[in-house]
Amino acid sequence: MAMSAENEHPVKAFGWAARDCSGHLSPFKFSRRVTGEKDVTFKVLYCGICHSDLHNVKNEWGTTSYPVVPGHEIVGVVTEVGTKVTKFKVGDKVGVGCLVGSCLSCANCKEDLENYCPKMILSYGSKFHDGTITYGGYSDNMVSDEHFVIKIPDNLPLDGTAPLLCAGITVYSPLKYYGLDKAGMHLGVVGLGGLGHMAVKFAKAMGLKVTVISTSPNKKKEAMDRLGADGFLISRNTEEMQLAMGTMDGIIDTVSAVHALLPLIGLLKSHGKLVLVGAPEKPLELLSAPLLMGRKIVGGSLIGGIKETQEMIDFAAKHDIVADIELIPMDYVNTAMERLSKADVKYRFVIDIANSLKSS
Amino acid sequence: MAMSAENEHPVKAFGWAARDCSGHLSPFKFSRRVTGEKDVTFKVLYCGICHSDLHNVKNEWGTTSYPVVPGHEIVGVVTEVGTKVTKFKVGDKVGVGCLVGSCLSCANCKEDLENYCPKMILSYGSKFHDGTITYGGYSDNMVSDEHFVIKIPDNLPLDGTAPLLCAGITVYSPLKYYGLDKAGMHLGVVGLGGLGHMAVKFAKAMGLKVTVISTSPNKKKEAMDRLGADGFLISRNTEEMQLAMGTMDGIIDTVSAVHALLPLIGLLKSHGKLVLVGAPEKPLELLSAPLLMGRKIVGGSLIGGIKETQEMIDFAAKHDIVADIELIPMDYVNTAMERLSKADVKYRFVIDIANSLKSS
Repeated sequence: MAMSAENEHPVKAFGWAARDCSGHLSPFKFSRRVTGEKDVTFKVLYCGICHSDLHNVKNEWGTTSYPVVPGHEIVGVVTEVGTKVTKFKVGDKVGVGCLVGSCLSCANCKEDLENYCPKMILSYGSKFHDGTITYGGYSDNMVSDEHFVIKIPDNLPLDGTAPLLCAGITVYSPLKYYGLDKAGMHLGVVGLGGLGHMAVKFAKAMGLKVTVISTSPNKKKEAMDRLGADGFLISRNTEEMQLAMGTMDGIIDTVSAVHALLPLIGLLKSHGKLVLVGAPEKPLELLSAPLLMGRKIVGGSLIGGIKETQEMIDFAAKHDIVADIELIPMDYVNTAMERLSKADVKYRFVIDIANSLKSS
Repeated sequence: MAMSAENEHPVKAFGWAARDCSGHLSPFKFSRRVTGEKDVTFKVLYCGICHSDLHNVKNEWGTTSYPVVPGHEIVGVVTEVGTKVTKFKVGDKVGVGCLVGSCLSCANCKEDLENYCPKMILSYGSKFHDGTITYGGYSDNMVSDEHFVIKIPDNLPLDGTAPLLCAGITVYSPLKYYGLDKAGMHLGVVGLGGLGHMAVKFAKAMGLKVTVISTSPNKKKEAMDRLGADGFLISRNTEEMQLAMGTMDGIIDTVSAVHALLPLIGLLKSHGKLVLVGAPEKPLELLSAPLLMGRKIVGGSLIGGIKETQEMIDFAAKHDIVADIELIPMDYVNTAMERLSKADVKYRFVIDIANSLKSS
């Protein structure tokens, strides 16, 4: 018989977990392993709420095993390091994103693409090397092999940095991989949520012209005035869309609901790239002729590797980029999840773990 | 009133044209311009029958204006050159593919990508600079600006070379652009017709491992024994397909009927590329999660630029590559079109123009 979550490891841990597909989160006692020789243990200070946390607590992807402690945008301060840890010391500000393990020997891992390793271990809800289930960052402490730990530069505020570890890298990585990072290029960003607002910030810092494409006219002012976008298109306004046809080098499409690709492909110049980072459950319609006529591509991208995540954080530090967040106490999390399901957040909830998670 | 096709230009020409959407081809007298200072005029020896000729004579794309003289895989011998022609002389073996004009000044043209120029002029059925309609290679002579003329090396037999000018470049160009030209890579080729069999030949010459993916089990022997493919998958055989999952660096998909992309995307390794060169009229279903999970792309490609077409022909000459053809007389063309509509050809019909086109 498997041991209980509270007793399977020696180190006490406390967080909030969902116990069933209602998705309702409540206090949960569990445990973590002692600091191994390559491990970094840290006190969790902040944890972002990613939309995938919502999918997971409600088992909307059918892959959840309960209880689940979500959270993969985790930042904190190192409290202990293993004897063979070389990159971190006690007191360092660190973060852990979506991954806490991978095989480290496959072709992807060898190219620092642990995020595409077939054996990657997610920060929560995955089976770890020792057979136990991983628990995420809605909790008071965290432990991870140093390979999967990110160093956070001093000038970055930790609360706004947490979402960079998923939302940030998810849009930064495709900008780099698909070559959409050259100053002067014109980038479209579809959807202005957690991912989209980060795409605007990174692309602007890279020197691109950025146009936000959204269904919500009321996001225009904020996109342009606050986030610095250069243009704004309402996707349902066919006249506006028509005028913008053939003007974009690439598009980062963050929408995870079924939507039309054809108008987006039309916005691209020849050889333009439409990159999907959201994953609608049902198939999208793809007309091939427009791809052929302009040698365009539709590609995907999933978070990023550890080396690139560090690069992204360093880039963010250099350009003073953090997420726009709404900082909430732990006991607001169920309300936050409800609001998130209605896209009612600008642009990321971050849980103030250290100041509001009470184990009593 | 516009002048008749027979009188609008000074040089007599004779070919076969379709007059209506029955697509039936019959003898047709028309005319061509005199050799301009940058023009190359040549006697047509052979012309391939492309599947798009069939679409065009039947007006299946809704863009045909009759009468239409099809043919854009045209080879012959130069009979006259203009005073400012520098690359060709009388007696040279030459070819013209899908294009006879473009703006030569846009971003695409400047990068030798005339095939993506918004003002490209097709070899038949397009409005030329002088306002007249272009006529294709099912005819006794041809004239083109030297920019759009390809030099054919002496060692290539002209009949089998004709199809390289469309079918050949259509698959060669994406192999290069999408980086699927590295020795040791594993390429899938979907559909073994005019385009598919050329993809196998080019990829093998580049040193790739090639697997043909087809609905027809009876094509296996020929694919492997005659064309040199290394593997053969029957797309409806889910067990076979399952075993090949995640093994291919790229796929050239030549199918122009609606078909499932998901199994093909499954065949790709991480970061693999599915390139569509056929254009089904209706949208295909694209599930985005598999693209994200492996950072895969679905891209398109349309013929190729003139510089690359010359490069392809030179590559073919170096590696003794021509199309597998069925050489037919002009008066067989209507039967050939019927057979083509049933994919009953291995792998390209080529019309023996010089020996069978009789103007009497």
